[in-house]
Amino acid sequence: MTRLVAREPEASSTSLRIRRPDDFHLHLRQHDMLRAVLPATGRHFARALVMPNTDPPVADADALARYRSEIVSANEWPFEPLMTIKLTAGTGDKTVRLAGEAGAVAAKLYPRGVTTNSADGVDEVDDLYPAFAAMVDVGMVLCVHGESPDAFCLDREEAFLSAVLPRITSEFPTLRVVVEHASTAAAVRWVRDHRDRTGTSTVAATITVHHLLLTLDDVIGDLLSPHHFCKPVAKRPEDRAALVEAATSGDPAFFLGTDSAPHAREAKECASGCAGVFTAPVALPVLAQVFESAGALDRLERFTSVAGAHFYGLPLNEGVVTLRRERWRVPAEYHGVVPFLADRYLDWRVSEDGE
Amino acid sequence: MTRLVAREPEASSTSLRIRRPDDFHLHLRQHDMLRAVLPATGRHFARALVMPNTDPPVADADALARYRSEIVSANEWPFEPLMTIKLTAGTGDKTVRLAGEAGAVAAKLYPRGVTTNSADGVDEVDDLYPAFAAMVDVGMVLCVHGESPDAFCLDREEAFLSAVLPRITSEFPTLRVVVEHASTAAAVRWVRDHRDRTGTSTVAATITVHHLLLTLDDVIGDLLSPHHFCKPVAKRPEDRAALVEAATSGDPAFFLGTDSAPHAREAKECASGCAGVFTAPVALPVLAQVFESAGALDRLERFTSVAGAHFYGLPLNEGVVTLRRERWRVPAEYHGVVPFLADRYLDWRVSEDGE
Repeated sequence: MTRLVAREPEASSTSLRIRRPDDFHLHLRQHDMLRAVLPATGRHFARALVMPNTDPPVADADALARYRSEIVSANEWPFEPLMTIKLTAGTGDKTVRLAGEAGAVAAKLYPRGVTTNSADGVDEVDDLYPAFAAMVDVGMVLCVHGESPDAFCLDREEAFLSAVLPRITSEFPTLRVVVEHASTAAAVRWVRDHRDRTGTSTVAATITVHHLLLTLDDVIGDLLSPHHFCKPVAKRPEDRAALVEAATSGDPAFFLGTDSAPHAREAKECASGCAGVFTAPVALPVLAQVFESAGALDRLERFTSVAGAHFYGLPLNEGVVTLRRERWRVPAEYHGVVPFLADRYLDWRVSEDGE
Repeated sequence: MTRLVAREPEASSTSLRIRRPDDFHLHLRQHDMLRAVLPATGRHFARALVMPNTDPPVADADALARYRSEIVSANEWPFEPLMTIKLTAGTGDKTVRLAGEAGAVAAKLYPRGVTTNSADGVDEVDDLYPAFAAMVDVGMVLCVHGESPDAFCLDREEAFLSAVLPRITSEFPTLRVVVEHASTAAAVRWVRDHRDRTGTSTVAATITVHHLLLTLDDVIGDLLSPHHFCKPVAKRPEDRAALVEAATSGDPAFFLGTDSAPHAREAKECASGCAGVFTAPVALPVLAQVFESAGALDRLERFTSVAGAHFYGLPLNEGVVTLRRERWRVPAEYHGVVPFLADRYLDWRVSEDGE
């Protein structure tokens, strides 16, 4: 794993105030797990785009309303869930329009079999053209899990970006598309090349916290680390470097989507371990360290609190969160879920007094 | 994972007799684990080269004699352990000569930190030149775990082969070297190129059973599979294809070393899983299926029972083992160790009556 702080801290930065952030890719789950993990996000984030791959999925306006109610019931903070629906082979334009009226800001495309609860994912994106057309009409964003599941694991993102995504963007040039949890230098290049080629800013990418730190070495390079296993899997050092550059560059096409994904410890430490890293409790402190290492603390707010809201056409959040330089140890577990960097020490901490 | 049988079986092959095989790379462990796993090999293999990375390691003649005694005490079969010593930074020519007199047929080089119990491995191969010179003198084989631990996990084998091994082979051109558990097309090429370039057959490679079936997709491509996690980690489909070609080609530079490596289930299904696949109970049936799929059943015996003995200068084994076409289900566990292909069905089975 990359060292979290590679250079001397800037003398002035013993605390850091940023506009309250957004997480544009979050798994909140349901029931007990929802109640267990919501505080980690709700306490400090103003909004989060909540992924719809629950079981059963959030695939229409009714399910969206039920899921939002469940989240709101569990919510004790000034936190707003931004709702999505999951596209399946049967999603038509009417479903999209009703979901939009019910408040969906985005729809999520999962190729079939590519990650957790994606057995009902999509085989042929052409089937979704009526849905995409309706999304353009009502102003919904398309979020893609950009991996082609038939490719070799390390090639899946690039395969999707070269073979599938161009069909969507050329057929629907005004559809706003987010390449979720970009994991490769190729994805960073793709987003920038698309902008240069088309002169539009309709394609963006979220970047997770864990992909800024991990490479495949952290998953399989020493002992096997199920708590570093995610989809897309962490790639090569040069991929990680490209993601850090993109996140810290201030380029508005890249913004935070943590993909924080809780799984019970037993679902990770077993013979068939689930993919997903629970980063919500450490997201802001780790980002502060990553941006500080890159000499880019002054651009952290753009990544966490500005670029995503602009892309989604949402107002910027009110209020601030304060990060203080304070050494603390990440708990070993949160309600049976092992967080990212469990038991490790971090140098920044979110101030709990809201100052 | 590759399909085990991709073509119709040859009509004649309802049973298959091969000379009793050798396993030129085996982890037998110690104490209870030794007694638990020895039957899986001892029952059908005539000989196995027993790896010295026990704890403490087998690093000299005395330790070798003690370890051989422990194995022999647990052995109920006509099975002969071929002994090795582990090279450490302090191994000198005298240690090698005494180990040779005590019966060591090979010495094993582990770069430091590269796999299970390798914290005492070697940083600088130059330190071992007196040991290598003595090995040439007494006719011992050098077995290398051919990975450079500082490289990115998928590049480690190629890094060792391009940067470290040439120094050894050019300094000691008559030293016999085995690249253990070759995992890449690059390793297959390296062995053949070395032969072509030097006109000698001093370098060979062992190939495991699991590297003939697995790619990285089987480790991290779907759910995380600790029981498919090994060092070197399984690579790309084209690497697997190159290994199958080398193993089934009849080329005498490639022979069986299973690297069968038992770990208790709890040491695999945990937050920091050990590397190693316990293939001994299924090695011969799986090989029969791989060779049958490649249309090379007639070359199986060369891979399991001839090429390795020739390379090591050992007599061929007496007796045969018989494989029958008989569907059976691999047990879920052997004494707390999950075997390769646990609960899966295989089409070939070793006949227990010794016919």
